[in-house]
Amino acid sequence: MRPSFKAVRRGGLEMSDPLNVLTKKTPRQFDQAGSPRSVGWTRAHRVRLADEKNPLPLDCGKTIAPVDVEYEIYGKLNRARDNAILICHALSGDAHAAGWSADAGRLGRPWLKNRPGWWDVMIGPGKAFDTDKYCVICSNILGSCYGTTGPSSIDPETGRPYGLRFPVVTVGDWVRLQERLISHLGIDRLLAVAGGSLGGQQALEWALAYPDRVESAIIIASAARLSDQGLAFNVVARNAIMTDPNFKDGDYYGGPTPGRGLEVARMLGHITYLSETSMENKFGRRFCNGEGPGFHLGVDFEVEGYLRHQGKAFVERFDANSYLYITRAMDYYDASAWGEGDLDKACRRIESRLLLVSFSSDWLYSPAHTKELALALGRARKRVSYANIESSYGHDAFLLEVEKLSHLVRCFLGEGVAE
Amino acid sequence: MRPSFKAVRRGGLEMSDPLNVLTKKTPRQFDQAGSPRSVGWTRAHRVRLADEKNPLPLDCGKTIAPVDVEYEIYGKLNRARDNAILICHALSGDAHAAGWSADAGRLGRPWLKNRPGWWDVMIGPGKAFDTDKYCVICSNILGSCYGTTGPSSIDPETGRPYGLRFPVVTVGDWVRLQERLISHLGIDRLLAVAGGSLGGQQALEWALAYPDRVESAIIIASAARLSDQGLAFNVVARNAIMTDPNFKDGDYYGGPTPGRGLEVARMLGHITYLSETSMENKFGRRFCNGEGPGFHLGVDFEVEGYLRHQGKAFVERFDANSYLYITRAMDYYDASAWGEGDLDKACRRIESRLLLVSFSSDWLYSPAHTKELALALGRARKRVSYANIESSYGHDAFLLEVEKLSHLVRCFLGEGVAE
Repeated sequence: MRPSFKAVRRGGLEMSDPLNVLTKKTPRQFDQAGSPRSVGWTRAHRVRLADEKNPLPLDCGKTIAPVDVEYEIYGKLNRARDNAILICHALSGDAHAAGWSADAGRLGRPWLKNRPGWWDVMIGPGKAFDTDKYCVICSNILGSCYGTTGPSSIDPETGRPYGLRFPVVTVGDWVRLQERLISHLGIDRLLAVAGGSLGGQQALEWALAYPDRVESAIIIASAARLSDQGLAFNVVARNAIMTDPNFKDGDYYGGPTPGRGLEVARMLGHITYLSETSMENKFGRRFCNGEGPGFHLGVDFEVEGYLRHQGKAFVERFDANSYLYITRAMDYYDASAWGEGDLDKACRRIESRLLLVSFSSDWLYSPAHTKELALALGRARKRVSYANIESSYGHDAFLLEVEKLSHLVRCFLGEGVAE
Repeated sequence: MRPSFKAVRRGGLEMSDPLNVLTKKTPRQFDQAGSPRSVGWTRAHRVRLADEKNPLPLDCGKTIAPVDVEYEIYGKLNRARDNAILICHALSGDAHAAGWSADAGRLGRPWLKNRPGWWDVMIGPGKAFDTDKYCVICSNILGSCYGTTGPSSIDPETGRPYGLRFPVVTVGDWVRLQERLISHLGIDRLLAVAGGSLGGQQALEWALAYPDRVESAIIIASAARLSDQGLAFNVVARNAIMTDPNFKDGDYYGGPTPGRGLEVARMLGHITYLSETSMENKFGRRFCNGEGPGFHLGVDFEVEGYLRHQGKAFVERFDANSYLYITRAMDYYDASAWGEGDLDKACRRIESRLLLVSFSSDWLYSPAHTKELALALGRARKRVSYANIESSYGHDAFLLEVEKLSHLVRCFLGEGVAE
């Protein structure tokens, strides 16, 4: 079956039919990419959005150039150019939000070969973000390690990777760069900006920073700011990375990487993405040997094996310095800064409609914090809808509670039709 | 003012009046040690409870010898020897549960100089564990680093510190060793065994392992087993320690210690001891400079400074290998093992009265888990009282909610008198 692939060749958008690479794919991938509900094979695009003449100003007071941005596009931009939806990814995400990457080999990211984009369940023909109707764009954030400029990029001043000489970036900086991308693509106004977790904070920041350029914001499993507890977890994660003997103040490129430290950081992250209940359901204190304690300090419980596996897999695909910078941006984000510390005042800037969704067992961005934002928006008399979805999946629910979330997103986008 | 010190010189119990060291103390300590509600200056005792002829059998199947135990005693054992209460400490605790140590210098533990024992608020003349009535005993657990044999002790087989050659120990092993101590002190039956957190699990294990030797058990902020989530935090903590370049498979004695890794582990621990609310109340996302973001990766938020401080202070006083072994014992503990995995069946062994206390915001040993144990005890028709104390302090509440906890303990011990 040939993938139902939609070529978009207009206004800076280009997505070539990648049938030439299909033979390298497994039959399973072929089937999935060809499914009527998949966006099919996808290509990563890269564009330079800041250079010496037009550097990107940053919240820290510095500027940065050059800045390249990697992005993907699914669906077709209409003539009025008013059907674009920007999807914002979270901490460890990338621009490959949907479909099957035809570029895994070219980009040197083998892990992309065996799985669809990170929000494929939500983006595609007939899905919540319906690529038959909308033009869905996702770009990699500044400071990350997936094609957009980050700490592993070459610092033009030294000719070597930035490492910790990379400037500290913020959610505001990410959105400022996304605005350049949207302008580059010839889009004046986004129909929606959407994201979960740190992606939700980017959606919120869009509504605050560019109130006239975004019709609606979909903010999932997120809040106006991270709690002190969440902040503390990030502190521990960063310290674990910096403790690794290979960290070398961030100048490890070309040599062994601080993989052990990054592994520990990711293990910790995974605990905060799950809920106590989902962990109990998933592992139930079971031993790897299926019997009882092995009386050693190595991997003995299933939960240990799971965390180690997740940690090791992450090290294969992520840059430790990017983890430092992105968690720092997560720490610093506080929407109330738009109102000199007063969230209600900040919310008054917003002109978009907003959908806020939390999940009952999420304790990283808990329902209480999402609700706090919803109430502030309400007091500012904004058009806000807030829903708390009952779920045992914890923070990860924004990737898993597809049915309930899809229903809410559809209704909000003006369709209101169940699948 | 002379400390109101009670010498106990009978039946193996000896606590000499340490007035000779008073001159080295600060006036403030002198006042506090002399307070009518302090047990005063305390001495650490050490006794060998296992040797080659009589090694201690361990749950892992091995035996260990020699085993020395450090303990302290407050109050006086009566003629009937039936007023003894054993206090069990948690992960990072020691035998110095109350009063002011007269041995800080001799033991090489300077941190003991400026603070009273870890449960001083609960133990003393007129306090919940009233040393005018009870003889209160606290001993350091096997595998720790405060005077009882542990990984930093000399392995008689090699003449060098055990390091990771130390056997994996369990809560059951700790209690087996405590039983030897109690017998050594000439006590047949304990009036009570009490503890919080991992100390509560020791109290529970006493009731299960020695049903005829313990009148009552006071189990605070604890449960029949740790949740998968709690287990996962321990996994991350151990991995952080093992990632430290100075760890060297545990053979770091005599050289630099894996302090960075232990610091990370302790920082993580502190997050689990507080609640989201208590962290918010304590730090409120405030910056160290009192203003706004410094745009760097170092310590910028107050919560970061706090965690780093706690981590660094811990490294000065704790052994990383002990942290590995004690968290492992915490992982392995499961009271249902006494009933072949059936907690109700396990509970049927118990003959003691039991008091269970949880704290509403504790998420390390959450009220749900304490209640699960209380219900199992109820189904087994045991004399159990369970109370959930409203508190925002999280797990640390067992050290902080003194008034409410004291009231419950007094009532349970048969006094029922408010202060």
